[in-house]
Amino acid sequence: MNCVETPYCRRVAYYETDKMAIVHHSNYIRWFEEARTAYMCQNGESYADLEKKGFLMPVVSVNCRYRSPVGFDDEVEIYTRLVSFNGARMKFEYKIYTDGGNRLVVTGDSEHCFIDAETRRPLNMKKANAEFYEKCTLMLGEKQN
Amino acid sequence: MNCVETPYCRRVAYYETDKMAIVHHSNYIRWFEEARTAYMCQNGESYADLEKKGFLMPVVSVNCRYRSPVGFDDEVEIYTRLVSFNGARMKFEYKIYTDGGNRLVVTGDSEHCFIDAETRRPLNMKKANAEFYEKCTLMLGEKQN
Amino acid sequence: MNCVETPYCRRVAYYETDKMAIVHHSNYIRWFEEARTAYMCQNGESYADLEKKGFLMPVVSVNCRYRSPVGFDDEVEIYTRLVSFNGARMKFEYKIYTDGGNRLVVTGDSEHCFIDAETRRPLNMKKANAEFYEKCTLMLGEKQN
Amino acid sequence: MNCVETPYCRRVAYYETDKMAIVHHSNYIRWFEEARTAYMCQNGESYADLEKKGFLMPVVSVNCRYRSPVGFDDEVEIYTRLVSFNGARMKFEYKIYTDGGNRLVVTGDSEHCFIDAETRRPLNMKKANAEFYEKCTLMLGEKQN
Repeated sequence: MNCVETPYCRRVAYYETDKMAIVHHSNYIRWFEEARTAYMCQNGESYADLEKKGFLMPVVSVNCRYRSPVGFDDEVEIYTRLVSFNGARMKFEYKIYTDGGNRLVVTGDSEHCFIDAETRRPLNMKKANAEFYEKCTLMLGEKQN
Repeated sequence: MNCVETPYCRRVAYYETDKMAIVHHSNYIRWFEEARTAYMCQNGESYADLEKKGFLMPVVSVNCRYRSPVGFDDEVEIYTRLVSFNGARMKFEYKIYTDGGNRLVVTGDSEHCFIDAETRRPLNMKKANAEFYEKCTLMLGEKQN
Repeated sequence: MNCVETPYCRRVAYYETDKMAIVHHSNYIRWFEEARTAYMCQNGESYADLEKKGFLMPVVSVNCRYRSPVGFDDEVEIYTRLVSFNGARMKFEYKIYTDGGNRLVVTGDSEHCFIDAETRRPLNMKKANAEFYEKCTLMLGEKQN
Repeated sequence: MNCVETPYCRRVAYYETDKMAIVHHSNYIRWFEEARTAYMCQNGESYADLEKKGFLMPVVSVNCRYRSPVGFDDEVEIYTRLVSFNGARMKFEYKIYTDGGNRLVVTGDSEHCFIDAETRRPLNMKKANAEFYEKCTLMLGEKQN
């Protein structure tokens, strides 16, 4: 695992476990969101600011593969990577590790589109927000190298 | 338990349990909300419609006492009662039962105020929405008898 | 949509919405679980009973495609279908509709394995629980016709 | 606010907001739990370890007063204080601040009892776990001074 990016780290809360005594599978989808928010922020794009500018980034699809469970108080590291972006769609991949990076917990991805907060109509960010478009294109290029 | 009102019924979902194998205590607060929504609807006031008219009903306080646990797939009945209303504030009480009404699970209450959806300023519904005011006053009277 | 099966119906709770004023995408994964539980029960297999017998059915993967949003108080119907089962793995597909079945909201699937509740070791239900195996094989056959 | 204790800090996740564009009120109860877990750990009592030793600490009551809302990506600090403990019952108080400690968001408390993880019978920790009893008595004393 030769990732250069800083992972997003967090501990498992009690309320995130279920009666199997492991994290309920729906919560990883929520952690993807936390990790994506942190990743965008690290790369100079605050999602909170993006929304203030009138853009929303709804989720188009989510895929998640559960490889090994984690339980209450376990520490996890979430690696996020932008894997595609064309102005209209954006795709992230996630890898969640525990035990200091030695055990793979979950892998997954999420795809997003862009819409206008007011009209809820789809947008191409190349036109709608050139600065965002360039930053994401750069983010994509760096990860690919 | 000589309640005349129809309780709001639901089953415990798997994702609502925690590693103690019982419902996580935060979820009862969410069930209060579900029950309150159903209760208002039964009494001719859809909360969804109230919001469409521009009114919000944020929660000012919640109190909850846990008496007996429930687990996955258990059926619960939630009794809701409006216990005070003066146009500016509104208070509901809840009783959650299981085992066909024979076991008391949780009791609690929630207090609400009214605000304008746009300005987020507090409102007195006596002025802001007379129809709602009358309906709630009536609802309160009926429950007291 | 020529489904013969009875859909699982529910309303959107307020706490399931997010600041986009639509259901947060993670909640559909939770609804899949509710619908799967109801579907298994309809087909004579209570998941609560299965757990009491010492079997767990952890989720191996989840895929979800978001086609159209729903908001607070909207009614949804969830159609569940068992699409594969070989004793060791089981796959369900889901279709969530709203507007009386006229608008497709979400499609997805979930794959499950079987483990022993004590040892947490994988099981083949053909050996471990022949009755369950036969019921599921039947369930699969019926849906395919 | 002359607290000596280190607050538990976290940011608001998107999935914790609701359609009012603020944190859903049930989530503060979950944050109380996160803060309580961190507070106990800071004071030398890991709740995860306590459970491994066979003790559970179910919630007996929760009270919560909502004073000012927070929204997506806001940073909050949660101050936790043990306010009573007699071996059989334990009570914590919480204060949640934002804006660098300048705005009070929520105040509340939670009461807990102790049960045996196996039998689910109530326990007095003075007998059941003397080390825990002493640590908590100390914790209580320190906070009162």
